[in-house]
Amino acid sequence: MTDIDIAQKVKADHIKKIAEKLDIKEAHLEYYGNEKAKLPLDLIDEEKVNQSNLILVTAITPTPAGEGKTTTSIGLNDGLNHIGKKSVVVLREPSLGPVFGMKGGATGGGWSQVIPMVDINLHFTGDFHAIAMTNNLLAALIDNNIQNRSKNLGIDPRTVIWKRCMDMNDRSLRNIVSALGGKAGGIPNETGFNITAASEIMAILCLCKNLEDLQDMCSNIYIGDTFEGKPVYAKDLNASGAMAVLLKDAIKPNLVQTLEGNPAIIHGGPFANIAQGTNSIIATKMGMSLGDYAVTEAGFAADLGAEKFLNIKCRKANLSPKAVVIVATIRALKYHGGMSLDRLTEEDLEALEKGFPNLERHIESIQSFGLPVVVSINAFNSDTEAEKKLIYDYCKTIGVPVALSYGWAEGGKGCIELAEKVIAAAQTCEVKFTPTYDLEDSSFTKIEKICKKIYGANNVVLTDKAKKQLKKFENLGYAKLPICMAKTQKSLSDNEKLLGRPINFDIHIREFEIATGAGFIIPIAGNILRMPGLPLTPSAEKIKIDGEGTISGLF
Amino acid sequence: MTDIDIAQKVKADHIKKIAEKLDIKEAHLEYYGNEKAKLPLDLIDEEKVNQSNLILVTAITPTPAGEGKTTTSIGLNDGLNHIGKKSVVVLREPSLGPVFGMKGGATGGGWSQVIPMVDINLHFTGDFHAIAMTNNLLAALIDNNIQNRSKNLGIDPRTVIWKRCMDMNDRSLRNIVSALGGKAGGIPNETGFNITAASEIMAILCLCKNLEDLQDMCSNIYIGDTFEGKPVYAKDLNASGAMAVLLKDAIKPNLVQTLEGNPAIIHGGPFANIAQGTNSIIATKMGMSLGDYAVTEAGFAADLGAEKFLNIKCRKANLSPKAVVIVATIRALKYHGGMSLDRLTEEDLEALEKGFPNLERHIESIQSFGLPVVVSINAFNSDTEAEKKLIYDYCKTIGVPVALSYGWAEGGKGCIELAEKVIAAAQTCEVKFTPTYDLEDSSFTKIEKICKKIYGANNVVLTDKAKKQLKKFENLGYAKLPICMAKTQKSLSDNEKLLGRPINFDIHIREFEIATGAGFIIPIAGNILRMPGLPLTPSAEKIKIDGEGTISGLF
Repeated sequence: MTDIDIAQKVKADHIKKIAEKLDIKEAHLEYYGNEKAKLPLDLIDEEKVNQSNLILVTAITPTPAGEGKTTTSIGLNDGLNHIGKKSVVVLREPSLGPVFGMKGGATGGGWSQVIPMVDINLHFTGDFHAIAMTNNLLAALIDNNIQNRSKNLGIDPRTVIWKRCMDMNDRSLRNIVSALGGKAGGIPNETGFNITAASEIMAILCLCKNLEDLQDMCSNIYIGDTFEGKPVYAKDLNASGAMAVLLKDAIKPNLVQTLEGNPAIIHGGPFANIAQGTNSIIATKMGMSLGDYAVTEAGFAADLGAEKFLNIKCRKANLSPKAVVIVATIRALKYHGGMSLDRLTEEDLEALEKGFPNLERHIESIQSFGLPVVVSINAFNSDTEAEKKLIYDYCKTIGVPVALSYGWAEGGKGCIELAEKVIAAAQTCEVKFTPTYDLEDSSFTKIEKICKKIYGANNVVLTDKAKKQLKKFENLGYAKLPICMAKTQKSLSDNEKLLGRPINFDIHIREFEIATGAGFIIPIAGNILRMPGLPLTPSAEKIKIDGEGTISGLF
Repeated sequence: MTDIDIAQKVKADHIKKIAEKLDIKEAHLEYYGNEKAKLPLDLIDEEKVNQSNLILVTAITPTPAGEGKTTTSIGLNDGLNHIGKKSVVVLREPSLGPVFGMKGGATGGGWSQVIPMVDINLHFTGDFHAIAMTNNLLAALIDNNIQNRSKNLGIDPRTVIWKRCMDMNDRSLRNIVSALGGKAGGIPNETGFNITAASEIMAILCLCKNLEDLQDMCSNIYIGDTFEGKPVYAKDLNASGAMAVLLKDAIKPNLVQTLEGNPAIIHGGPFANIAQGTNSIIATKMGMSLGDYAVTEAGFAADLGAEKFLNIKCRKANLSPKAVVIVATIRALKYHGGMSLDRLTEEDLEALEKGFPNLERHIESIQSFGLPVVVSINAFNSDTEAEKKLIYDYCKTIGVPVALSYGWAEGGKGCIELAEKVIAAAQTCEVKFTPTYDLEDSSFTKIEKICKKIYGANNVVLTDKAKKQLKKFENLGYAKLPICMAKTQKSLSDNEKLLGRPINFDIHIREFEIATGAGFIIPIAGNILRMPGLPLTPSAEKIKIDGEGTISGLF
């Protein structure tokens, strides 16, 4: 059975039943159909947040198919509920880009899924669209100000860094010349689109405390300079009120359920390669307010999602996980050990062992934060007993707890070993995490610390353009912002061909973007792009719907 | 009190209570919060459609503030319910373009509004965003096909006519060069964005029967040619399944309520100047299935919305209104009589009388369809008794029923006279309307008939470009499609400065667009643009939201 077959076969509970399990009264729910609801922010209870166990799920460097972080998060949550713990899984919202492109949905797989999976993977409750409109309203206001010379703040169009966005893999929009067609069409300008998840508005939504805070953060977005070199902010365009109004519902986390009827909160930001890539602070705190355990994930491997989750998000929200799960697959470890993608179902103990250093690097990264690690092997039917034993023995040798997880095949029952080891690890954790860098460090030092301590790089190399940009940001007073790296997810380095645990490499920062509203600097490493393209055969081509409304070809 | 003050003051009923009034069971409702719900298509009952009275509300050529067509439609619906008729008002969804631009919301005014007005004017149930994503998915698939030479259908990028869209007044996106940045960025191309309401996808949603029909219509979208000159359709890109899936919820009409708790269905397409501009066939038939009266509106004046409502939509759906209300204001008639916008509150009987020919032209247009007309004067406080008497007497002279409507000030109570005259008119109507042109006419003849019979033009003049395009469309086999004019709403002519009832003018067709999936040809007259721009001071600048979530500055 495919994921969508399973998801459509299971009868979902009415969402009010899921809410009841969390002692949420029906009056607090804002329904979107019978299976989705938005939750009001006043359900957040800081006292409960302080008592709850936050569990972060991250991964090794993934194969193109992903390691099953979401599947493991859902399975772990179901496993925790299975053994009597009150646990909530807090996930990120899928982007339509991969849904129509290559990677597929982001709602788990097999018997560890969240439902209604079709809706969640499509428009869900409209949050992404609201974010895109907010982003693009600011763009239209900037260009309109430039166009109307009597009102123009004196914005120099050549300095405008604010891009538009769209939740689509559309390479053609990456670099455009806009405002052609003569006087009525505006002042021609080089610009482009990022994918919505990479928009600063997404980051603001994920990092704000409430709607007022969001409005303030929007005010502080730096968009470019006047001809006199004075910085211009969204507040100068009187934009932030309308921006906040567009986000008044998107700011509320969404409640859904796992296939086993356990609560799941889904809210905010994927794409930890090109964005901050973790769900919203509001959603994480909501999960912690409602559950004794809150299981959350951060995108791609620990060098990206987990690093940003800790250094940006948890630092800002004053949160700290009690344990970190690193998801690995035997397939991916063999891939890092040199096997080709088409042979990964064959047993190969040598390749597997050769792949361990990638896992080792990510374990060290999490340990560098001072946090307990649990390795979770996301089991595939093709894994052999000898392979499983090898990885078990390896983890024992290095003193890290390990569990085989059968969430895909068995749901929560298949994740009880993992759940028990996570509980044990969380009980040992008595400290808050230690960040990789201090906010007082210079921007360059911060980048260097991430690249050396987390990626294992030798040095950081900036292009002349990047040096100039960084200097400018420091002159504008942004030296104390944290860093949100944009780097390929396919390697610890900035070169996607370097698998395993690369050594003797530098990180090359091509250019910077800055998000002064969200509050971080974005170094862009290697060839990474913040607007993906579609693959040779986009998934969209396979999707069909029949007269009865039954959908096929979607995952 | 402003419109938003009134709308926020009235306590809305739970939407299930509104549904109960229409005998809709709760199980049929898909809630979006407590005050909005989507309705399933199987509530449409063709037998009831045949028995129901469809009432179309149109207007004279409007001032920039609009004549109050939506306000009158809502007031008339409340009036009909007030006197014991089972009536449903069926409106179009607002676009965010005017909300952040100039015209404001599209949910009526004063005591004739639909609520929740803020939500309806913002993202509502996400229909516009789903339409935009569908439009833009096709654009991405086209460009991706061109980019991947091994898969390329042989599409000649210079011939691609499919544009992207966004629900924003953003002149900078009207004309762009896309896909810059070298090989990885695609093949550079001249293209642009229309506003979402003008997208062919909006028209398909508004003209389809059901999701299967929608998928078929999407398949037939013509996007450009191969290098060999063969036409390429969305079906050649395997796009229509994914497009239909994106629209699986947007296709369902939305149920809300008037301030007086009467049912309102809101679904699909505004902007009758640049689009077909009427709500969906599905929504109209839903309204007719649920009410003995269904009051609907078509955008701008009778030369635009009503013409398209009848010649395109009603012809396709085999519907015919029983009566047509033409909304006029004394202010606008004086404006057409030569008064300047800033003096319209002063009494001026001479200017008023001079403005009558505009009303007369629109009455004649509706009569040319063989339909009964009722004139509704949307009353303003500044109207004087003498002015009211003058217009009353004028309508009597020409034998057209007239009612003064106080929907804005009094809600349904203020529209009882109108309701009674509409019922009387509907009872006299025993025929289906006569279209302005036959589908068998040549495309040029169709355009000529609209321009002469509805606008009062002398001739139709095509540019060389337009002639070439029309010839091409005929060669492709599209000679029998109906016509969807794009023309300024500010004049019966294509020159927005010609007020009143212009004579001795030609209509100039600058170029054509074509919508082969929706099934019409779009002649673009004069200077009209299908992507608006923001005004000098966009409404967006005034919008604020406070810590309690109270919104101000939105209308």
